[in-house]
Amino acid sequence: MNFASDNVAGTSPALLQALADINDRPLPSYGGDPHTAEVEHLCRKIFEHDNLRTLLVATGTGANALALSALTPPWGAIYCHSDSHIAVDEANAVEAASGGSRLMTIDGAHAKIDPDKLRAAIYGKGIVHHPQPSTLSITQMNERGATYSLAELSTLTAIGREHGLRVHMDGARFSNAIAGLNCTPADMTWRLGVDVLVFGATKNGALAGEIVVCFDPDLADELEFRRKRAGQLFSKMRTLSAPLAAYLRDDLWLENARHANAMARQLAQGLADIEGAQLLRQPDGNQMFLTMHPALAERLRAAGAEFDDWPEVGPDVVRLVTAFNTREADVHAFLSLAANA
Amino acid sequence: MNFASDNVAGTSPALLQALADINDRPLPSYGGDPHTAEVEHLCRKIFEHDNLRTLLVATGTGANALALSALTPPWGAIYCHSDSHIAVDEANAVEAASGGSRLMTIDGAHAKIDPDKLRAAIYGKGIVHHPQPSTLSITQMNERGATYSLAELSTLTAIGREHGLRVHMDGARFSNAIAGLNCTPADMTWRLGVDVLVFGATKNGALAGEIVVCFDPDLADELEFRRKRAGQLFSKMRTLSAPLAAYLRDDLWLENARHANAMARQLAQGLADIEGAQLLRQPDGNQMFLTMHPALAERLRAAGAEFDDWPEVGPDVVRLVTAFNTREADVHAFLSLAANA
Amino acid sequence: MNFASDNVAGTSPALLQALADINDRPLPSYGGDPHTAEVEHLCRKIFEHDNLRTLLVATGTGANALALSALTPPWGAIYCHSDSHIAVDEANAVEAASGGSRLMTIDGAHAKIDPDKLRAAIYGKGIVHHPQPSTLSITQMNERGATYSLAELSTLTAIGREHGLRVHMDGARFSNAIAGLNCTPADMTWRLGVDVLVFGATKNGALAGEIVVCFDPDLADELEFRRKRAGQLFSKMRTLSAPLAAYLRDDLWLENARHANAMARQLAQGLADIEGAQLLRQPDGNQMFLTMHPALAERLRAAGAEFDDWPEVGPDVVRLVTAFNTREADVHAFLSLAANA
Amino acid sequence: MNFASDNVAGTSPALLQALADINDRPLPSYGGDPHTAEVEHLCRKIFEHDNLRTLLVATGTGANALALSALTPPWGAIYCHSDSHIAVDEANAVEAASGGSRLMTIDGAHAKIDPDKLRAAIYGKGIVHHPQPSTLSITQMNERGATYSLAELSTLTAIGREHGLRVHMDGARFSNAIAGLNCTPADMTWRLGVDVLVFGATKNGALAGEIVVCFDPDLADELEFRRKRAGQLFSKMRTLSAPLAAYLRDDLWLENARHANAMARQLAQGLADIEGAQLLRQPDGNQMFLTMHPALAERLRAAGAEFDDWPEVGPDVVRLVTAFNTREADVHAFLSLAANA
Repeated sequence: MNFASDNVAGTSPALLQALADINDRPLPSYGGDPHTAEVEHLCRKIFEHDNLRTLLVATGTGANALALSALTPPWGAIYCHSDSHIAVDEANAVEAASGGSRLMTIDGAHAKIDPDKLRAAIYGKGIVHHPQPSTLSITQMNERGATYSLAELSTLTAIGREHGLRVHMDGARFSNAIAGLNCTPADMTWRLGVDVLVFGATKNGALAGEIVVCFDPDLADELEFRRKRAGQLFSKMRTLSAPLAAYLRDDLWLENARHANAMARQLAQGLADIEGAQLLRQPDGNQMFLTMHPALAERLRAAGAEFDDWPEVGPDVVRLVTAFNTREADVHAFLSLAANA
Repeated sequence: MNFASDNVAGTSPALLQALADINDRPLPSYGGDPHTAEVEHLCRKIFEHDNLRTLLVATGTGANALALSALTPPWGAIYCHSDSHIAVDEANAVEAASGGSRLMTIDGAHAKIDPDKLRAAIYGKGIVHHPQPSTLSITQMNERGATYSLAELSTLTAIGREHGLRVHMDGARFSNAIAGLNCTPADMTWRLGVDVLVFGATKNGALAGEIVVCFDPDLADELEFRRKRAGQLFSKMRTLSAPLAAYLRDDLWLENARHANAMARQLAQGLADIEGAQLLRQPDGNQMFLTMHPALAERLRAAGAEFDDWPEVGPDVVRLVTAFNTREADVHAFLSLAANA
Repeated sequence: MNFASDNVAGTSPALLQALADINDRPLPSYGGDPHTAEVEHLCRKIFEHDNLRTLLVATGTGANALALSALTPPWGAIYCHSDSHIAVDEANAVEAASGGSRLMTIDGAHAKIDPDKLRAAIYGKGIVHHPQPSTLSITQMNERGATYSLAELSTLTAIGREHGLRVHMDGARFSNAIAGLNCTPADMTWRLGVDVLVFGATKNGALAGEIVVCFDPDLADELEFRRKRAGQLFSKMRTLSAPLAAYLRDDLWLENARHANAMARQLAQGLADIEGAQLLRQPDGNQMFLTMHPALAERLRAAGAEFDDWPEVGPDVVRLVTAFNTREADVHAFLSLAANA
Repeated sequence: MNFASDNVAGTSPALLQALADINDRPLPSYGGDPHTAEVEHLCRKIFEHDNLRTLLVATGTGANALALSALTPPWGAIYCHSDSHIAVDEANAVEAASGGSRLMTIDGAHAKIDPDKLRAAIYGKGIVHHPQPSTLSITQMNERGATYSLAELSTLTAIGREHGLRVHMDGARFSNAIAGLNCTPADMTWRLGVDVLVFGATKNGALAGEIVVCFDPDLADELEFRRKRAGQLFSKMRTLSAPLAAYLRDDLWLENARHANAMARQLAQGLADIEGAQLLRQPDGNQMFLTMHPALAERLRAAGAEFDDWPEVGPDVVRLVTAFNTREADVHAFLSLAANA
């Protein structure tokens, strides 16, 4: 009963198998292998975009930082939510990769950027003293488990367009967002004006691997150099590419996310009847935050349940996260324990 | 018959098995798993050093850049060989990680730093105009397949000490050097004054993974932050740690290197009798460079052998690399083909 | 009648004369001249601190960025007001100099950091994912013309101390603050825990020149290298040092500030009687912000008065700034015009 | 008798007068003053180029670093001479400004880049592992007092063009080169393919001031932001602009350089007859290097002559530099002393 995070899990068996299948085979290094090409090919189909380019990177922080560095000059400003991963959880990685750009943090409920506050925060274009408005960074699904609707996304990217901003999407849990909204990947990204998506896999069944999807293919040439000098270019690229090809093939990425979301819904439904637990918001994907009476939390943990406190959201708030491999039995066990507590 | 590089190979089966064994188990993320601790523990035994610290990083470029950034201020100079990987093959990764330090390249036969030239290159200590002498970077075994003797290393580190330089060792093929010299890891590193070793595994049987070994444990605290903001901290650290623990356990790292070196020796011995092939130097480990008549090279490649031209060493020079999984049969097949060519 | 800024003015005649006096004399370059030493000597007396160190830099942005870069690691967080010059008006210079640190902006009335909000903003010490709490940056006198009282400063630096923060003071208008509070420079700085002060001169009668005052003398050694590689080390240092020595000698710096403040007070007093002008706050120094009826503003400008709109403070807000050389006659002329408008 | 450097001197009186003339006048800040515009206008005439753009910077190191940062990506390589100021005397300022680009140092007699060695040093274009060939940096006149002929420059810039390199000229002593070659500024720069010139004034009669001349005007837009965030944008820009306008007006820049060069020639001619002094090379401008018997050097210094040893050129080598204000009487006095020594 581990609901601590989607990064405590291992990997989908198919991904490990993909590595095993080619283990005895010599393969060109640094991305010359066929699996790297296959990932790009599969992304073009998934995103209905004939000339997007992809780069594989091991970590979400690395992928976000690289993507933003290609969109933002060192004197640029990046607009993001105050609770976004790039603002809170990446130890200035964006500043490092971009040569010292500025994060401009915007508030908004449920970790969603408030459009009016975004508009109000943009200033100084063309004036040499001010950080230059450059990039809008949106997390979909976000750090509080909330998903922007397509209309909400469209409002934000329209503001970006108005001010000449490039658009980055942190998609560490992109698959969960797609599974939740049941829309197409194209409709959630480039059709709205997203320039670069970090299409996360680590949290959704890979061991490591994020796909930097460049809808503007020109960005990829520069990113190849940026990735190399960031120490993010794998010599044995197969390590990332073969599992990721398996992840994208036959919609495993979507299936994994649907499973995680379904488990989250079951959990949320069950929790509605539990005294001492109060969901802050129905989960849009595989994460939920709830107020939990400390006594209940203690009893659940004593019985072996794992989950984290999340005091920055509020007193007695905990977070529950489901994953691609969360077992229905564990959900039931957790709910039973909670009910009997 | 692929002798193109040690990074075209897959992984030692034990490493893949290590991942499979724990795949269903939830594990703390970001290095809180037991395998990360085990890697450090094993390194302390291997290096006979009770309080060294280790950090796991995916790539050699990433590991070198981080290690050097902890040893060198932005206004510092790093002395390295002109043919070193950090100078030639890392697209300014060291400059990126260190905030703009300077590589001072030193010549010397067989990609070994010439001690007199090193001495002559150090200048300007304490003078504000000049890059400040800070760090000596030694590759062991190096980019031309040569290994420094312990006496040679000692000469270099003594010069470093004299000028207050910290010492970095790029050990992408450290295991091959140990197997070749048959000395202890401690004697080749901290006992000579090495501050940080990049103990490579990728080229010697891992899929990805380099161990940054800090013999000065204080460096590790700073490196934790540096690694995170470089996007090199894996959330599912098991991906690196579980295979690397298997790699270090029961001396698999050494066994792999011994095998690769043995295959290289067989290849070298066989090539002695081949017309049209002339080794530039007996291999100290698993790499060799030779002049090969173009007709011979063409015939070998036509028959399926893979290896790369290395024109920067000289006309008609090719490189042959063996790996942890090079089959004796392939060595024989290659030599037969060459003999009959 | 130019009240646009204190940087539209020339220089105190004594400073220009200081340059002229030595013009025919050869002098050691890069700070080896006697005037550079004199500046340090004078600062030690003014600040009652025997071993402080000083570095001369041409611009405030350059001085702030250097000072902060010596106090903050690349993975560090700097707490500053949302309206501070470093946050709003330096085009990411701090990020550039510090290798990508993060500015954490804090609100508070009159551009003063609210202590409670400061306390609430500090988090994540020792946790590798978060920007590390490192530095507190206080502007005295600040960008809205307000001066912190010594008690207010003490509250802030105490919070800093509690969390292990170093303290930077942006003193572009430090002299005006001293003249306003009528306290000693020592009491406003190192006795409260300020580590580095940027003691501005440009806005108070120099043509160019800010003195980076290191109350922790160890910082100066590193700053020498940082200044050089930032391109801020003048070869003909006399250009900065000779005028700055004249500026500090015989308390000219204080006299200049007292004059500017006195002119501001006269202006403020006169404005109290003017219809259509409403001071937002009595000036603590030489700057004031007021709501001015557009018709009044237009008439004043038509008559030759110069001053800037400041819409970021509010609708119809303008800023008036006096300088070391503001003529009483101009103040009277401005007030007469306003009265008769 | 101070021949230590051209930066021990003060300024041409006309430049100081220019500051005095406008001292009581309020002027727009940050480059909005008419003198800034005049400098650009005068440069357009001097360089016969209708749309070049200029930016004023205080120091040569700052100007070189900015110029190179606009020409070179962080993953780029800059080809320069091993003895160039950017390689030896700028404490990694170029790396700082450019976000970590690489200096590739090339040898060649008299601090001139050897064209064959330049050609040999360029490699790796388009290959992600290698620093990308980006920029050629030429110092004219250079650090050993030598001037490239127009033909030599043309050879170098042709190699640059062949490999797609942008061209930077470090012209700290550009005026002395023009005075020496007696060619037009246009012929020495943009007509040969120079993209950005640092047109130095500090060493030739200004107190501080280098003009970054962008023959590609598009570079200037980016450089405006780069200059600001480097802390190199003066608020009271008049400090640089008014003297520099006086410097360019009526060819004072050229007159100053001609005088310095003439004094150097007189010195060189006189030294031909001095026992114990042996010029290494006739001066092309205002610098010369000579072997001087230690006894002679000691006697000259005892009599008040100032000049520096230059051991990096050779044993007993000293450097003599003349300046815009070197007095003929001092040259004669020095030569008399030497003759009678």
